[in-house]
Amino acid sequence: MSTIQTRKRRSDGERSRAAILEEAARLSTVEGLGGLSLARLADAVGMSKSGLFAHFGSKEDLQLATVESAAGIFEAHVVEPASRSPGGLPRLHAFVDLYLRYVERDVFPGGCFFAAALTEMNMQPGPVRDRLVAVFDSWLGTLAETVREGQANGELDPSEDPDQLAFELEAAFFLANNQFVVKHSSEPLERARRTIEQRLAAITLQP
Amino acid sequence: MSTIQTRKRRSDGERSRAAILEEAARLSTVEGLGGLSLARLADAVGMSKSGLFAHFGSKEDLQLATVESAAGIFEAHVVEPASRSPGGLPRLHAFVDLYLRYVERDVFPGGCFFAAALTEMNMQPGPVRDRLVAVFDSWLGTLAETVREGQANGELDPSEDPDQLAFELEAAFFLANNQFVVKHSSEPLERARRTIEQRLAAITLQP
Repeated sequence: MSTIQTRKRRSDGERSRAAILEEAARLSTVEGLGGLSLARLADAVGMSKSGLFAHFGSKEDLQLATVESAAGIFEAHVVEPASRSPGGLPRLHAFVDLYLRYVERDVFPGGCFFAAALTEMNMQPGPVRDRLVAVFDSWLGTLAETVREGQANGELDPSEDPDQLAFELEAAFFLANNQFVVKHSSEPLERARRTIEQRLAAITLQP
Repeated sequence: MSTIQTRKRRSDGERSRAAILEEAARLSTVEGLGGLSLARLADAVGMSKSGLFAHFGSKEDLQLATVESAAGIFEAHVVEPASRSPGGLPRLHAFVDLYLRYVERDVFPGGCFFAAALTEMNMQPGPVRDRLVAVFDSWLGTLAETVREGQANGELDPSEDPDQLAFELEAAFFLANNQFVVKHSSEPLERARRTIEQRLAAITLQP
């Protein structure tokens, strides 16, 4: 009985921690990750600052936990569902659909967490910036790796530089995200889709 | 004599105001435009807060004046020198050279002022956000207009959508700027140049 209660409490604690961090990530895309203090977040989630302090010891710990939470959300909305499509060209098309839908559905109110946070923190050295850079690099690496798979499968022109193509895909995503937040219209998302689909069509090998 | 002194004082005042605003724009790309208070700027330029208050009445006035100063700097580094190249394709090539050089030369320590400030402020309604959006839209409009000139001159495929091409050019600039700030390497700048030059080459009509 006491074991069950302990388990239940732990489970509640975990759920609560996850919910707090999701709110922290959403809030960061509106007010900035740098503005994310324990006091500000306590206000936003309706908890006491001391209650939050029990979860996160410092502002930096809170920011780092928020980055991990946002990475999990991006993974769940974009990377994980795309992994159900075969590696190579089908998965590249899936990334386009899923990334643009993730922006359009306002998963974060201020657009992609990483686009916002990396732009904000890129001149502020420290573990938070380093972690943001690592997540962004990993995403670019995933795109390049998927191009390589498409080349290995004979779907894509093998003379294309995978890192160059990954840059071009992310460039379209990055500006589409920014302009969607500014205009809240699907036009920039459609422009990004057209950019990428035309680029992929031009280098897709006929079977 | 007193007229000359008055003129001199006015001229010093203007120079001083311009120098303060350039410092404010540079500081904003490191610490954020939202963090730009009279107190923080006074500290950065070594003036008293009351001295700055004589120049700018409020934080919002200071932010708006900083946006105008940054727009003037962008104009001086990119738009104005490109206007010496003929409208159309030569000017598009000039924009590529000048924009990438403006980023590489660290005109602003945190990269393009408008990329940073628009990303930071896009969820914060008000006159500062509106002005940032207007400057950014004007730049996209300039790119599209230059594409139209290239089409009218018979240099570029007339079936291309100028707004779509402007989006693609700015997408490459936007990510190149972000990644240059993150990595301080010329690689993302070269990737952007390759993206744009290949795209333009594909739609350039042979004379």
